[in-house]
Amino acid sequence: MAAVVLTGAEVDQTAGLLTLRERQSFALLATAETHAALAANPIFGVLDAGVVRRETVALNKSFALPGGLQAELFAVPGKIALYLEGADPQLDAETGANVGVEIACGLRRLLYVPGAAGVTAPLHQRLLRADAVLFDGTLFADDEMVANGTGPKTGRRMGHMPLDGEDGTLAALGAYKARRILTHINNTNPILIEGSPERRKVEAAGFEVAEDGMEIVL
Amino acid sequence: MAAVVLTGAEVDQTAGLLTLRERQSFALLATAETHAALAANPIFGVLDAGVVRRETVALNKSFALPGGLQAELFAVPGKIALYLEGADPQLDAETGANVGVEIACGLRRLLYVPGAAGVTAPLHQRLLRADAVLFDGTLFADDEMVANGTGPKTGRRMGHMPLDGEDGTLAALGAYKARRILTHINNTNPILIEGSPERRKVEAAGFEVAEDGMEIVL
Repeated sequence: MAAVVLTGAEVDQTAGLLTLRERQSFALLATAETHAALAANPIFGVLDAGVVRRETVALNKSFALPGGLQAELFAVPGKIALYLEGADPQLDAETGANVGVEIACGLRRLLYVPGAAGVTAPLHQRLLRADAVLFDGTLFADDEMVANGTGPKTGRRMGHMPLDGEDGTLAALGAYKARRILTHINNTNPILIEGSPERRKVEAAGFEVAEDGMEIVL
Repeated sequence: MAAVVLTGAEVDQTAGLLTLRERQSFALLATAETHAALAANPIFGVLDAGVVRRETVALNKSFALPGGLQAELFAVPGKIALYLEGADPQLDAETGANVGVEIACGLRRLLYVPGAAGVTAPLHQRLLRADAVLFDGTLFADDEMVANGTGPKTGRRMGHMPLDGEDGTLAALGAYKARRILTHINNTNPILIEGSPERRKVEAAGFEVAEDGMEIVL
């Protein structure tokens, strides 16, 4: 492993770094906002600066990744990490705190967008040219956590558009040529159950459900 | 799960808390030193104060745990967490930053001591009365990480006495009636290999090697 690219500072994006602390050398690439969130937590100091190079990446500027890849971070509507929220966080801010990654190898492009509160015009342009997209599949229904009693928040309150509904991801991403793969799927999301009506609905709409160990050939 | 008791603030003791952030209610019991280390890291704010009760425990004072258990934290020689180290950390300090737990149910007592730079007189007294001890088994030889090139530190530099040698754990814990089980075993430690000379040596000395899912009946 030569590099880690972060799309935000949320626990599910950063806690894994703590298991990479055993003097393994790699580059840690993220926006200034994400690096600042890490720097404010002394526990990430276990990533020894002599071993892990923290490199700040600007939005919408291409940078090289090992293996002949080019990558670019871009703002996606969303919110800052839970532990950085104030009393009334903006849920669809477009900043370096919540980004997607476009990875290019020659003419092939992969988009990775694990958290999106909506699809903006710039994101639409990237979706148009992508060959494959890994996209936010957090909740199927915006209120599913409220409905099943697992939490008081809607998906939109967490900065995620739902899959279902008029304003949902299935509708928003229905028209692209890219292979569309859902990721960042909450454990309440019924698309995780093979054969469920919700799973059949996303499959009928042409979406795949990501799984551990998945290999994507472009 | 009703309670979590921390013996320190090191990554391997605290990072797991980040996966318990899904509005699961429990008591988080630790010394003032350990709670301060958590409080200095905003990321642990994902453990919502309305759901997780942080309770500070004094050393050498019994407190109740759910299920009719009594517990007590006590200082064990060791050092503070890696990310709190200054230039020259004390390696065998006896403070609330590195503790053991004595858990009692009726007349039965279990000791859990995952990090120990030595065996002090008070620890000796607790070992004498214990029925079972889970004890620091980090390294077999003090210099094994240096010798095999995985890192520049000795076990003692990390606040852990080695298993082997005159001043090692096998010698220090040889004379107690308690069932002795080694835990907190580094991935360089050859006792993890069944049938290795080192594994046979610890077994011949009457020690067991802890494993995932182990059940201990007192």
